[in-house]
Amino acid sequence: MKIGLITIGDELLNGTRIDTNAGWIGGEVISNGGNVLWHVTISDTKDAIIEALNNVPKSIDIVICTGGLGPTHDDITSNVLFDYFKVKAEFDSDYWELLTNKFSQRDLKIPDINKNQAMKPSIGNIIPNPIGSARGLHLKNNSFDLFALPGVPSEMKGMMNAYVFPWIQEKSNITYNVKLLRTTGIMESALYEKLESFINDHQNIEVAFLPKLTGVDIRISSNSKNSNISFIKKIRPIINKYYYGELDIELEDVVAKLLLSNNMTLSTAESCTGGLISDRLTNVSGSSKYFNGGVVAYSNEIKSSALNVKKDIINSHGAVSDEVAMEMARGVKEKFSSDIGISTTGIAGPSGGTKSKPVGLVYIGIFTDEFEKTYKFSFTPYRKANKLMTTQAALNIIRLFLLKGLRDT
Amino acid sequence: MKIGLITIGDELLNGTRIDTNAGWIGGEVISNGGNVLWHVTISDTKDAIIEALNNVPKSIDIVICTGGLGPTHDDITSNVLFDYFKVKAEFDSDYWELLTNKFSQRDLKIPDINKNQAMKPSIGNIIPNPIGSARGLHLKNNSFDLFALPGVPSEMKGMMNAYVFPWIQEKSNITYNVKLLRTTGIMESALYEKLESFINDHQNIEVAFLPKLTGVDIRISSNSKNSNISFIKKIRPIINKYYYGELDIELEDVVAKLLLSNNMTLSTAESCTGGLISDRLTNVSGSSKYFNGGVVAYSNEIKSSALNVKKDIINSHGAVSDEVAMEMARGVKEKFSSDIGISTTGIAGPSGGTKSKPVGLVYIGIFTDEFEKTYKFSFTPYRKANKLMTTQAALNIIRLFLLKGLRDT
Repeated sequence: MKIGLITIGDELLNGTRIDTNAGWIGGEVISNGGNVLWHVTISDTKDAIIEALNNVPKSIDIVICTGGLGPTHDDITSNVLFDYFKVKAEFDSDYWELLTNKFSQRDLKIPDINKNQAMKPSIGNIIPNPIGSARGLHLKNNSFDLFALPGVPSEMKGMMNAYVFPWIQEKSNITYNVKLLRTTGIMESALYEKLESFINDHQNIEVAFLPKLTGVDIRISSNSKNSNISFIKKIRPIINKYYYGELDIELEDVVAKLLLSNNMTLSTAESCTGGLISDRLTNVSGSSKYFNGGVVAYSNEIKSSALNVKKDIINSHGAVSDEVAMEMARGVKEKFSSDIGISTTGIAGPSGGTKSKPVGLVYIGIFTDEFEKTYKFSFTPYRKANKLMTTQAALNIIRLFLLKGLRDT
Repeated sequence: MKIGLITIGDELLNGTRIDTNAGWIGGEVISNGGNVLWHVTISDTKDAIIEALNNVPKSIDIVICTGGLGPTHDDITSNVLFDYFKVKAEFDSDYWELLTNKFSQRDLKIPDINKNQAMKPSIGNIIPNPIGSARGLHLKNNSFDLFALPGVPSEMKGMMNAYVFPWIQEKSNITYNVKLLRTTGIMESALYEKLESFINDHQNIEVAFLPKLTGVDIRISSNSKNSNISFIKKIRPIINKYYYGELDIELEDVVAKLLLSNNMTLSTAESCTGGLISDRLTNVSGSSKYFNGGVVAYSNEIKSSALNVKKDIINSHGAVSDEVAMEMARGVKEKFSSDIGISTTGIAGPSGGTKSKPVGLVYIGIFTDEFEKTYKFSFTPYRKANKLMTTQAALNIIRLFLLKGLRDT
């Protein structure tokens, strides 16, 4: 079923509040047989609500509308909807009694303005709200069914789960299946070229590429779970070097599992990343099992004193060099008695670049008893982007080292 | 000026990605003289884009459109816009050469599909993208100016700041004055109590409290710049201890300025924060002037070997204790020859808590030649929240130490 969302509230338009309801509905409704295809956010005015209702695309079967059901002056949704759907509003004295009792149980006198929450439509349904006082509405015209719900996430979610999703599931014949594959170390266009022929051969599968600084997520969706699985089976060998997990898994989670299964420990020697690798590693609960710690060696002195990098290596090659990256990785592995040392040194920017060593130039070193290597990267002019991209590259180097079969020799 | 947003991408509709761009634009555009009044999110199809453009409310002056400017098959925005605005697309060979060079600098061959990113309109402007390969478009018809930008937040933000906001500011006649004061170390309700009487006395000023994990931002807005200034003048002395800056300044920026003006250097000894303090410190360009580096001492062995914390202090008090926090701060100050050592040790969670040392218990130590102190905090059950809140508390301790007048003795 094709779903449209109308979210009402100035606070969503002016950046005071980030709308998390829409994303939640969009994700949850899929497994109930629905797809959100259109979503409009509007301010709390009668005109804006009517314009949005008039502009609902013809293909939409159901409109879910959130916000503006509270008791205060800017909560006008119910009245506008009663008008728009040409239903009479009737005072629901049973509900008013119930509300009054709820208030008095909390030693509160119910304000008169709450009376607008006790109005019910002459045709259509009321959607119960077990948490708050704002009930929902289920109205209908020739074009679509409309469900109006409060904007408070906990209330909205409870009412969606209890009323709207079951209704959609019953009416819907489709089930829609989605898989998200995460990749890193390859650009969107190169990934697309690798997969293009598979995508063309599977017209029933929808494939979307979602690029981020840390890599490209591939979203695979279709009406058939089996189609998804067989498609993924075909493309996985092609992207093995880049693929690190599904859904919301992070590279540090993957590295954590691999370190544990290989029974190895890790230490970090960070210059340009300034601690962001160790921060990411320690975002994983239980990371103390494989992460001893690390050194943020921002100055050349610390690179020497804390990591045993020889001063003449720094002087002859510069702090941002293959050689220093290797010595930093070796130094932290030995000083911290770890199995793996990983290091970063680079020009994070925006200043500090030269012609031969521009902003974005980064070296990463890995040092273990059996394997050592340095890697050179050219990232961006932007400091934070460079830091983040370097951590992702470093974690991926550790991943590929631990996977052995994919080890970069 | 009245702004409409069109965000394009199935991933925003189906809950794969939460849209943070819209909220950012909605918030930032206000101080540039704009107000977002309408926002529609649509899927990556030609029909959906055209329908959205046709339904832009008449009152809207400017449409900002994000997403769908990448190189792959579902990135159709440019072509649809060229059609809709009836402009010819011309191949920009200069830009193609530049892109090709960018790729070859990274030892990559540019894929042919990137060619669609080198198309430019015969009428209208190209908006440069210094980070990525997807340039933006500025097109115009009789109803509105349209700015099309990529959906990647860092790219979108850079292009908004460099091109779109200045354009809006120039064209706009309205000035809505907004000030954002950032505070830390005080809860929303306590802050409100301190400011309640001032808020009641200034009915022409709108005051909103925006709580985050790292503190509470106070948004002050009115139609008059002078009213804002005089209001802020009144409340500043009340919140001096908590106030650290305006707008999007971060606590690490404030600490940076104070360290430079005091001509002091800093080093970090991090356990529960796992490197996040040094990461934040090194987000500031030029941080090598005052930040030598630090140690992430995740294991007890490293606390002893790298920071000289005596083993019997760890054994008798536990790694999460006042005493260990102090020794870590002293150790890193001495080992790294800095003026200030700052340390963190705590139970980040979600596991590892005990009755006497529950998850969220954190000690922070500061050690200098003239001042030493430890601080105890009880944060949350959540790992990432605890890490972030601890870094904010630690940076605030450094700030208050450097301000002397506010030093916590």
